[in-house]
Amino acid sequence: MRAQLTILKVGGKIVENEGTLSALVRSFSALSGPRLLVHGGGRTATDVAARLGLQTVMVEGRRVTDADMLRVVTMVYGGLVNKQIVARLAACGVPALGLTGADMDVIRSHRRTGTAVDYGFVGDVDRVDGERLAQLLQAGVVPVMAPLTHDGAGQLLNTNADTIAAEVARALASRYEVTLIYCFEHAGVLRRPDDEASLIPDMDRAAFEALKADGTVSGGMIPKLENCFAAVQAGVARVLISRADSWDTGRGTWIHV
Amino acid sequence: MRAQLTILKVGGKIVENEGTLSALVRSFSALSGPRLLVHGGGRTATDVAARLGLQTVMVEGRRVTDADMLRVVTMVYGGLVNKQIVARLAACGVPALGLTGADMDVIRSHRRTGTAVDYGFVGDVDRVDGERLAQLLQAGVVPVMAPLTHDGAGQLLNTNADTIAAEVARALASRYEVTLIYCFEHAGVLRRPDDEASLIPDMDRAAFEALKADGTVSGGMIPKLENCFAAVQAGVARVLISRADSWDTGRGTWIHV
Repeated sequence: MRAQLTILKVGGKIVENEGTLSALVRSFSALSGPRLLVHGGGRTATDVAARLGLQTVMVEGRRVTDADMLRVVTMVYGGLVNKQIVARLAACGVPALGLTGADMDVIRSHRRTGTAVDYGFVGDVDRVDGERLAQLLQAGVVPVMAPLTHDGAGQLLNTNADTIAAEVARALASRYEVTLIYCFEHAGVLRRPDDEASLIPDMDRAAFEALKADGTVSGGMIPKLENCFAAVQAGVARVLISRADSWDTGRGTWIHV
Repeated sequence: MRAQLTILKVGGKIVENEGTLSALVRSFSALSGPRLLVHGGGRTATDVAARLGLQTVMVEGRRVTDADMLRVVTMVYGGLVNKQIVARLAACGVPALGLTGADMDVIRSHRRTGTAVDYGFVGDVDRVDGERLAQLLQAGVVPVMAPLTHDGAGQLLNTNADTIAAEVARALASRYEVTLIYCFEHAGVLRRPDDEASLIPDMDRAAFEALKADGTVSGGMIPKLENCFAAVQAGVARVLISRADSWDTGRGTWIHV
């Protein structure tokens, strides 16, 4: 029987707010067994960029990352946000280890090309070193992953945190029974945007296609759900989209093949 | 017989310049066997702080670190400088792992108090987890350490990189025959500041006291040498102060008890 592994992805809105970060650190620390955290940090990156006189350009929810913006996200994701989470987890007795894809070459990517928009230094994942991550987990270490990867030739690349969570979950699915949880500010996928009670508790591919067609699911939720379905199809045992303050209750939208 | 371990400390001037960083990455990558890198990054921190409208205050060569400056050094040391070095080493096939003291709780410190100057969020080292670092080294991992530690209660602290290098060397001295090398912009300790040919090839404690008394050694070189002597006295096999582009030739000032 494979051991259980929980992979939690938390967005910038959660980790950049003192109250929600504290709650998240508490609930994540209370988990037993192997676990891994993937975080964002886009709001802080946008804020720091603005204070440095750099304008943030987003195309379809993705950050255009020129050389200056890459420096900002390397500072904010790899340094500020990552190390604050690591220190907070350490204070709860969790042996957290901050990682980018460049660290021990755990996530290799290539610069995105051939798109209508030049996203700059943005990387699409080629491979995750599941063996190395499994060794860390077996040693009791808790990886805390920033949304940065590298191309193996010395270039850091900005990489979507949802994608990193899904790719890491897939890479570990043969070794662990993986539960992948995407935390955000809503209870899950909602039928009506402003009505938390309209939560859709379960969704399969057919339901997803229908919800896309009728416009219930749109915008940034589409790539998020695509990541979820890709993970489930690749052998990830369970995928949940949930609110950051209640993911540990299991309330949210469960994704099925 | 204990295995050899090389610990290299490189200052900000070296890692923040494309040419010297490339040379350093090449020479460090060419080393075989267990090795560990400790880096600074003060110049970039000062530059980023200035662009964010923050003034850098140094007292006796040490940065006064208020809450805003702590955010800057966490971004610059833990993120920008650390991850750029890690990615460059990865490109040379070195499985580099960026670490602060908070990561896996490898370096615990306490906030400096009781000094005439309030340095703010500056930490003095209490203990280094030599066992954890040795496990990484035995697994072939190459730690790349940023000059940040934590107090175990969630607070990151700015910590002098020379001190981190010396403390890590001491913590590993019972397990490894450690060579600790401080790289900077000169050939070693010089009798005359502008004359690289006036290199002092060997120095013991008595010579150090004499050189301090006659003013040959002054300023920031005094705490650097104190770190060196403390390391040698604590069982570190060899300590060398050398130029960043020639440390691998063994030319420089060797420190003896």
